[in-house]
Amino acid sequence: MNAPVLNPKAIDSAGASQVWQGAQRQVHIQEVGPRDGLQIEPVVVPTADKIALVNALSAAGLKKIEVSAFVSPKAIPSLADASEVFQGIDKLPDCTYSALVPNLKGAERALEAGADELNLVMSVTQTHNLANLRMLQEQSFAALAQIVQQVGSSVPINVSLSCSFGCPMEGDVPLAQTLHWAERFIALGVQGISLCDTTGMAHPAQVHEAASSFIKRWPEVECTLHFHNTRGMGLANILAGLDAGVRHFDSALGGLGGCPYAPGASGNISTEEVVHALQLMGYSTGIDLQALLTAAERLPGLIGHELPSQLVKAGPRWKTHPAPANLEEIRQRALAR
Amino acid sequence: MNAPVLNPKAIDSAGASQVWQGAQRQVHIQEVGPRDGLQIEPVVVPTADKIALVNALSAAGLKKIEVSAFVSPKAIPSLADASEVFQGIDKLPDCTYSALVPNLKGAERALEAGADELNLVMSVTQTHNLANLRMLQEQSFAALAQIVQQVGSSVPINVSLSCSFGCPMEGDVPLAQTLHWAERFIALGVQGISLCDTTGMAHPAQVHEAASSFIKRWPEVECTLHFHNTRGMGLANILAGLDAGVRHFDSALGGLGGCPYAPGASGNISTEEVVHALQLMGYSTGIDLQALLTAAERLPGLIGHELPSQLVKAGPRWKTHPAPANLEEIRQRALAR
Repeated sequence: MNAPVLNPKAIDSAGASQVWQGAQRQVHIQEVGPRDGLQIEPVVVPTADKIALVNALSAAGLKKIEVSAFVSPKAIPSLADASEVFQGIDKLPDCTYSALVPNLKGAERALEAGADELNLVMSVTQTHNLANLRMLQEQSFAALAQIVQQVGSSVPINVSLSCSFGCPMEGDVPLAQTLHWAERFIALGVQGISLCDTTGMAHPAQVHEAASSFIKRWPEVECTLHFHNTRGMGLANILAGLDAGVRHFDSALGGLGGCPYAPGASGNISTEEVVHALQLMGYSTGIDLQALLTAAERLPGLIGHELPSQLVKAGPRWKTHPAPANLEEIRQRALAR
Repeated sequence: MNAPVLNPKAIDSAGASQVWQGAQRQVHIQEVGPRDGLQIEPVVVPTADKIALVNALSAAGLKKIEVSAFVSPKAIPSLADASEVFQGIDKLPDCTYSALVPNLKGAERALEAGADELNLVMSVTQTHNLANLRMLQEQSFAALAQIVQQVGSSVPINVSLSCSFGCPMEGDVPLAQTLHWAERFIALGVQGISLCDTTGMAHPAQVHEAASSFIKRWPEVECTLHFHNTRGMGLANILAGLDAGVRHFDSALGGLGGCPYAPGASGNISTEEVVHALQLMGYSTGIDLQALLTAAERLPGLIGHELPSQLVKAGPRWKTHPAPANLEEIRQRALAR
């Protein structure tokens, strides 16, 4: 009994927003931790642990997982084992295993390793594109367009637009600038666009406006929102996106991730916190929260530090704590007053 | 140009919720850090530092501050200097300085010290009331009713209902149970009720339903929502409350606070994170964010540990970072390809 995927204005007869009550509507939570999270960790996680992590995520019910990136091992040494990870995982038939690729060579390697979907990335600001990808935006676009043209008929292609809601170096980004880059890729025929809040600058008013504009203009393109919780607005941004009709959201187990150009920033919004909140609200995610929590508890052992996820620390809402051992004594003393 | 305080269903002509766009509507952010935050810290903050903290908060534009509690110094030694703090602060005429009081004696001391408003507290669950206040609920109600009857004509009285959205020991709390206790105090003539999410169990669907029910039933009573960010849902809960028509929210500088009955829990939702998000969304809070951040940065020095506030670490959205020093070199190398 899921509502249509695109249902931008879910309003009840009294006129109030229905975003607060999920009513079993389906939301697609997409895991990016193994790629977006692990790529910035100073520790290189062993291949077998990466494989176990991806398997745990698919077993927990995630239907799309960004497994790794086929990039230069000099640029991102921690993901140099992308092929081995892809070839080692237990592929579930209803899960899409995607790979980030920067160029045609990377795309070919990804397809050879068995990636189901390619994720291409560039920034909507020139400064971030240069700093992060060492290319001018037009050079990035040309390299990515080549991938779409050469292999776009064999697997679905998604394009992630970094800094869609602001750039840590340039500051504000006009919505028209973000939509301009979306339009150029959509004209090439890509299946999906992710609007990425790379350093946690998005706020709910902005998200609602951007997502509404996107969906109105390109209702046939799958729109994903990708938030970091840098300034504590991640979940609120997801709800703003949901109210605008978006149904696909990226997140990372434990809140893994960050950005080297935004010092002090926490990571992606945590998968288990999003799933916990949306399930409580009555949305259908198809994900087993307890399995996620079990997998998240293993992360600090892999990367050597605590993660931002508060849910791992506090436990889910329904986990009660024992009353004080002397409660009966307290009650008797109270009654005796 | 503020909208009416109670505006439960702000819907535009197209039928979408307007909660995402603040449109200069006024929101009242009420600081509880000096009381709800400091009371659980193992370190006793010196009186002069507490006074400086309250003064910094009022100077930043907060219009209601819970300054301290007039309770047994044996029960809460860290707030034993409540009278001295009240007498030492620079009172601004448009700021309400409130005090938590547990009984008539405490209320009399608070009024003598110059409190503008009294905040009474009890739990909507028997177990939490016994564990936290050492009294049965009916005993708490009787003690608080005595305060309302004896001094309720001299200052406004607010009642904070702990565990309004769930109890860490009993679990789920039916909305009717929370509203039952609200009703009994409203019948006594109190001016305000705070629905307190003492251990971060509230979720947006629940908040929207509870706040809508409260406002529909008692439109004349000031309803405050008090959230902890234990499971990362604090800001989303505030937006759900706003969409239901609530305009008063508690928060604590730096995200101070917690609950001894919920191990691992983070504190109250952080004042600076709420103000930052709401201002970006176009709400009017009347608060100087930079002044809040400056005050928040001093807190770890007072209490001896870091605080949950992510905004203090990352800085506000508009704080840009320098581009890499070699950006021009990167550009030239890219152009030469």
